[in-house]
Amino acid sequence: MAQENLTLVLQARGDLRLENRPVPEPGPNDVVLQMHSVGICGSDVHYWQHGRIGDFVVTKPMVLGHEASGRVVKVGSAVKHLKIGDRVAVEPGVPREMDEFFKNGRYNLSPTIFFCATPPDDGNLCRFYRHSANFCYKLPDNVTFEEGALIEPLSVGIHACRRAGVTLGSTVLICGAGPIGLVSLLVAKAMGASKVIVTDLSAERLAKAEELGADFHLKVTKADGPQQVAKSVEDLLGAQPNCSIECTGAESCLQTAIYSTRSGGVVVVVGHGAPMVTVPLMNAAIREVDIRGVFRYCNTWPMAISMLASGKVNVKPLVTHRFPLEQAGEAFETTRQGLGIKVMLKCDQNDQNP
Amino acid sequence: MAQENLTLVLQARGDLRLENRPVPEPGPNDVVLQMHSVGICGSDVHYWQHGRIGDFVVTKPMVLGHEASGRVVKVGSAVKHLKIGDRVAVEPGVPREMDEFFKNGRYNLSPTIFFCATPPDDGNLCRFYRHSANFCYKLPDNVTFEEGALIEPLSVGIHACRRAGVTLGSTVLICGAGPIGLVSLLVAKAMGASKVIVTDLSAERLAKAEELGADFHLKVTKADGPQQVAKSVEDLLGAQPNCSIECTGAESCLQTAIYSTRSGGVVVVVGHGAPMVTVPLMNAAIREVDIRGVFRYCNTWPMAISMLASGKVNVKPLVTHRFPLEQAGEAFETTRQGLGIKVMLKCDQNDQNP
Amino acid sequence: MAQENLTLVLQARGDLRLENRPVPEPGPNDVVLQMHSVGICGSDVHYWQHGRIGDFVVTKPMVLGHEASGRVVKVGSAVKHLKIGDRVAVEPGVPREMDEFFKNGRYNLSPTIFFCATPPDDGNLCRFYRHSANFCYKLPDNVTFEEGALIEPLSVGIHACRRAGVTLGSTVLICGAGPIGLVSLLVAKAMGASKVIVTDLSAERLAKAEELGADFHLKVTKADGPQQVAKSVEDLLGAQPNCSIECTGAESCLQTAIYSTRSGGVVVVVGHGAPMVTVPLMNAAIREVDIRGVFRYCNTWPMAISMLASGKVNVKPLVTHRFPLEQAGEAFETTRQGLGIKVMLKCDQNDQNP
Amino acid sequence: MAQENLTLVLQARGDLRLENRPVPEPGPNDVVLQMHSVGICGSDVHYWQHGRIGDFVVTKPMVLGHEASGRVVKVGSAVKHLKIGDRVAVEPGVPREMDEFFKNGRYNLSPTIFFCATPPDDGNLCRFYRHSANFCYKLPDNVTFEEGALIEPLSVGIHACRRAGVTLGSTVLICGAGPIGLVSLLVAKAMGASKVIVTDLSAERLAKAEELGADFHLKVTKADGPQQVAKSVEDLLGAQPNCSIECTGAESCLQTAIYSTRSGGVVVVVGHGAPMVTVPLMNAAIREVDIRGVFRYCNTWPMAISMLASGKVNVKPLVTHRFPLEQAGEAFETTRQGLGIKVMLKCDQNDQNP
Ligand SMILES: NC(=O)c1ccc[n+]([C@@H]2O[C@H](COP(=O)([O-])OP(=O)(O)OC[C@H]3O[C@@H](n4cnc5c(N)ncnc54)[C@H](O)[C@@H]3O)[C@@H](O)[C@H]2O)c1
Ligand SMILES: NC(=O)c1ccc[n+]([C@@H]2O[C@H](COP(=O)([O-])OP(=O)(O)OC[C@H]3O[C@@H](n4cnc5c(N)ncnc54)[C@H](O)[C@@H]3O)[C@@H](O)[C@H]2O)c1
Ligand SMILES: NC(=O)c1ccc[n+]([C@@H]2O[C@H](COP(=O)([O-])OP(=O)(O)OC[C@H]3O[C@@H](n4cnc5c(N)ncnc54)[C@H](O)[C@@H]3O)[C@@H](O)[C@H]2O)c1
Ligand SMILES: NC(=O)c1ccc[n+]([C@@H]2O[C@H](COP(=O)([O-])OP(=O)(O)OC[C@H]3O[C@@H](n4cnc5c(N)ncnc54)[C@H](O)[C@@H]3O)[C@@H](O)[C@H]2O)c1
Ligand SMILES: [Zn+2]
Ligand SMILES: [Zn+2]
Ligand SMILES: [Zn+2]
Ligand SMILES: [Zn+2]
Repeated sequence: MAQENLTLVLQARGDLRLENRPVPEPGPNDVVLQMHSVGICGSDVHYWQHGRIGDFVVTKPMVLGHEASGRVVKVGSAVKHLKIGDRVAVEPGVPREMDEFFKNGRYNLSPTIFFCATPPDDGNLCRFYRHSANFCYKLPDNVTFEEGALIEPLSVGIHACRRAGVTLGSTVLICGAGPIGLVSLLVAKAMGASKVIVTDLSAERLAKAEELGADFHLKVTKADGPQQVAKSVEDLLGAQPNCSIECTGAESCLQTAIYSTRSGGVVVVVGHGAPMVTVPLMNAAIREVDIRGVFRYCNTWPMAISMLASGKVNVKPLVTHRFPLEQAGEAFETTRQGLGIKVMLKCDQNDQNP
Repeated sequence: MAQENLTLVLQARGDLRLENRPVPEPGPNDVVLQMHSVGICGSDVHYWQHGRIGDFVVTKPMVLGHEASGRVVKVGSAVKHLKIGDRVAVEPGVPREMDEFFKNGRYNLSPTIFFCATPPDDGNLCRFYRHSANFCYKLPDNVTFEEGALIEPLSVGIHACRRAGVTLGSTVLICGAGPIGLVSLLVAKAMGASKVIVTDLSAERLAKAEELGADFHLKVTKADGPQQVAKSVEDLLGAQPNCSIECTGAESCLQTAIYSTRSGGVVVVVGHGAPMVTVPLMNAAIREVDIRGVFRYCNTWPMAISMLASGKVNVKPLVTHRFPLEQAGEAFETTRQGLGIKVMLKCDQNDQNP
Repeated sequence: MAQENLTLVLQARGDLRLENRPVPEPGPNDVVLQMHSVGICGSDVHYWQHGRIGDFVVTKPMVLGHEASGRVVKVGSAVKHLKIGDRVAVEPGVPREMDEFFKNGRYNLSPTIFFCATPPDDGNLCRFYRHSANFCYKLPDNVTFEEGALIEPLSVGIHACRRAGVTLGSTVLICGAGPIGLVSLLVAKAMGASKVIVTDLSAERLAKAEELGADFHLKVTKADGPQQVAKSVEDLLGAQPNCSIECTGAESCLQTAIYSTRSGGVVVVVGHGAPMVTVPLMNAAIREVDIRGVFRYCNTWPMAISMLASGKVNVKPLVTHRFPLEQAGEAFETTRQGLGIKVMLKCDQNDQNP
Repeated sequence: MAQENLTLVLQARGDLRLENRPVPEPGPNDVVLQMHSVGICGSDVHYWQHGRIGDFVVTKPMVLGHEASGRVVKVGSAVKHLKIGDRVAVEPGVPREMDEFFKNGRYNLSPTIFFCATPPDDGNLCRFYRHSANFCYKLPDNVTFEEGALIEPLSVGIHACRRAGVTLGSTVLICGAGPIGLVSLLVAKAMGASKVIVTDLSAERLAKAEELGADFHLKVTKADGPQQVAKSVEDLLGAQPNCSIECTGAESCLQTAIYSTRSGGVVVVVGHGAPMVTVPLMNAAIREVDIRGVFRYCNTWPMAISMLASGKVNVKPLVTHRFPLEQAGEAFETTRQGLGIKVMLKCDQNDQNP
């Protein structure tokens, strides 16, 4: 009897549908996973609402979802490190070419990389999903599937903090307390930051930041001037932060981040905003405040799994809603409305546990 | 009435005496401190017992002590950042020349550096001590004097972990659970290490390591072969550690550290051993395991204070014994016998609190 | 008989005067130099013309000049590494406080640093000048005084290329063929860059770049679009450059530098422009093109002297004009008009050689 | 008509034979090359003479040769960046697994890597050779086949200098003026080293070093004490070198390298010597002289090609002997006797040009 493979497909902008697709077969270096937990990301909602992000345009039906974990059900002939039954987390970016970026260990910058749910590549919001085995990582028994799925956003935080140079005793400003700001907070603390301050427009989100370990939070409004916010940050910390991680995409936050950061420090740009922005670049330049972007991540899954297994990072409080895959529409609507932090879709009908 | 300044002087090898010395006056860039807490280091005992460490030979009377904190009682005319009454921790190394090392930010390598209780420079086991104000760091109210004094050994751990490249998810082997191994353990965990394994000959010291957060410990004997120990380390961790920090000075531990460390990793040499050692250097070289020494530290006090103030590192359990300065002889004998971990001398007659 | 000390003083905006000042006496850590060669920098002219650069405002008379070399004529009592007669190059920035930046080896970022000819600190366009001996570097016999003076702008190029990460085989875009663009070119080639392309508005300046070793040059106009220039750069090099060094201060060049640079590369901001600029920051961020400022330099004199002494860098062709100190007005007017590249003032009446 | 494929096979220790083998067919990601120039490496001779290097043992017939260039004659179905007729240089190490080392950009450390002429993997001393297309690099027209073949040893020099941190103004000690010492010299100079000193036992080899640009050379004898040699190095350079690159494998040279190197510097271990060596590790540790191994190289071909194409590195003088493939025995005998520097085997009967 053929298995069904319920799949969430974005047919076109605004048109999200559950449909049945064939269960995939693995190529020699692939595994097929029975999906368990898949988080909804802001980008999934963005593709649904706008049909594009920057130059990536949805021109044909695309499966959504890229924060995922599941269980191995089929193993390609050349795969050695995984076997049927293994619980794995999925790294959604798989380089296609062995170009200079891949050889140099920065494969996230490879222009031809496959990436789940980035047009034209399909994601993994489905029952059964095929992926390169090399980018599936076995989860230890004490790491849940949901933690496994959350490694994807956590990886953005890891990469951001790594690029920020967070280390023992660092003081850190994080702009934005959405999922990305919050994982950056968790990682910064785990890397030894002594003081982390988080800003947001929303008191609720700041409350979550505090719950997750922020040392300070600062509620801002769109009217606040960046230099004024920078002053408040300095006052609260007792000194300018060593680094700032921008997780909102707002131009004003980029300005705040530059003004706030101590000379010789780093501003990391994670949030996606307007293509052209007006910023006090001279202020950064003459104080040698480096501005570094973050494009997803590379080489983060193994360290993320170590951290989760050792209990040093607790991502569980990020999950605020759960829906079975069948109710994907409702789940997406919840994220669209900005309710809670992370919405999980439960893809395995027989196991809807975390 | 002239104040007395009870001072612990090593007259010559084996000859430790308490004597009264004048209370010093500060130069323009100095402060004079009323000493509060001074920890005894293995090197203090070594100078007492052997009159030398390597090329550093005690040829005239020298005041011992370099793990210190106290309260500012006099302030030099040019000093701006400290005032009478400030509680400070003392960084014992003060560069004398603005040479290439100092300008480059590695002032610990400056060959002419002043260093407390390293011949011919006097230490601070006394009631009143003069020091460069630039190397005295104000303690926040929630950091005790003893924590302030412990910043000195903690700094060795910080510098070791920094040179080891410990970061989020690192796995770390630490050879030796003496004070230095233990502070390295504390720092490695605070920097995000997921698994730290500590080895020692002594079950008691390993128990302390476990109390302080070691994930694994391994009791070794002098008869164990380095490759055999390396195998046990790998078995316990489930993989070779990313880095190893040698804190015993034993040749066999250097060998173990090299064999144990994962390709591309780092062995940090903290322990002081024989000048010439026999090691499997080819094994390290062809696996690009870097071997990096640690000579004290530089630029660690501010981050150490941040960590202590934020409660992220708890050094208090290191202190196992306390003696008033008047009983320095007994205190040194305690350290010499290897009892406990850290012995504190309390130099302020009116305040013997931690 | 008292010596005269002819000195070039900017009395106020627009008011440049030669006047006689007393010959200084050295403090214990100083030397007094008989100045030999002092180059005129764009900033000297800018203070003269506008009385300010950014937040630095000329509010009282200030001696100009900071690209300097001379001969030691008096030596402070504590100075050991220099003696009367030594020929030295002057590093114009001398940190005043032992703050975190100085201790970390990034003393150029120290907010209280002394800097020649930056208000309110006097420069060295005079006959006799006092300076911290620690920031005077002995010149080998085969390095001329003018080469010594040119170490100052060369240091900007060294710091820029170091921050750009130029290494063996790097391809480099340099925007601007003024003195700073040209020294960056020289340094990039000396560090192993395989291809350097230089842009400018001026054909003459590009000819100079070619003379100094540029592999490609591109004459641009203010009307050229940044993406169009980036395309030309890529076409000429055969690939996007690994890094770009902006030496014009023009907003359009910042844009060009970002669009041009290869993913994972670096844009270094050397040129000083408007405080707020509009740039394609998202383009940089999602390709992890880092944006790093340059504020002067630190730790460059020793390596610059090595390079000059070994003949690996030839700065001599940068000097296009020479005037005796007495004709400083004419010299400044030459620089103001943008004639040639570097104008040298010869301060020693008895030796006007290079 | 079937083509013949004359191939140099090491049947077993001491037994080198030319035999005919089938011309290979490319897999989808491969190319087949008509070999042009293949240099003989010390390791080829070592396998021939001793049948093993360390743990790598010749247990079945193996084709020798790994310093190679040739012309593409067949292209696998999935290959895009190469076409028939392209002239290419061969990177002999091809990672087999996408393990942590490969993902991190240090694929040379991958324990399962394929490497030409390292048991059990065949090399490319033959007429026709199949290789992963991703590890074949197109040569520009102005780079000869022999230069292409020399990229392999040059890469060792690049990796060594990179790990040594050679940069503008560096002073460098290189122990050994064999092919590897000489390429390290060439690269160090190209990276901006101001002074390079080379040691060897052989005056002839030192003469070659001087010809290739060494600033100083030092003829040593086996009787010279390491500290004595270190003293001579310091005297010649005027200061201790910033880094030392050991290219002999001699224990005494490792000792010399450690004693010689400036505090805070780096010793790079390239030469292969005895598994256990006795070295002054404490001397290195307390001066924070890092000891870093070199295992082949990674990510060097593109930059090497850039350097050769731009003429910044001239490897041509390294080739001192040439033999047609048919005379491989004589060629190997020449290398075994230590005559000249690099012996080239010319594999293309119709083109024996450089
Ligand atoms: N660089 C990458 O690889 C990467 C990866 C994932 C997400 N992102 C981007 O990161 C950003 C954050 O993602 P998220 O999922 O957390 O988004 P989110 O929208 O859930 O969170 C953004 C938060 O920023 C706050 N905010 C908005 N304007 C603000 C302002 N002016 N000041 C302070 N706070 C403000 C919002 O209230 C919100 O809580 C998005 O722009 C997303 O596109 C980048
Ligand atoms: N590099 C520096 O700047 C620096 C600074 C301080 C201390 N040190 C050195 O660090 C080392 C440690 O200092 P400490 O104060 O902790 O000394 P300690 O003597 O108290 O501790 C050393 C520990 O190593 C253990 N040990 C000895 N041989 C062992 C072996 N073969 N295997 C496993 N464990 C073994 C001992 O049982 C002991 O617990 C000393 O050599 C000291 O000189 C170096
Ligand atoms: N960051 C630092 O520490 C530091 C130090 C010294 C100088 N600077 C700055 O560096 C810049 C260069 O200094 P300089 O002395 O060479 O100045 P300069 O004015 O002599 O040279 C600038 C060059 O840029 C060219 N240029 C102007 N607009 C251009 C455009 N749109 N496209 C291409 N080329 C253009 C000009 O024709 C000129 O040749 C200045 O802004 C100066 O203030 C910075
Ligand atoms: N790490 C790597 O990846 C790698 C790669 C290639 C070669 N190697 C090794 O590098 C070393 C050099 O290779 P090569 O091809 O140049 O070898 P080679 O034998 O041709 O050259 C070695 C040189 O060292 C000189 N020498 C020997 N003992 C000396 C001493 N005590 N003092 C001074 N000089 C001395 C010899 O006279 C000779 O000129 C070899 O050990 C080789 O195995 C390592
Ligand atoms: Zn996402
Ligand atoms: Zn100590
Ligand atoms: Zn200037
Ligand atoms: Zn070889």
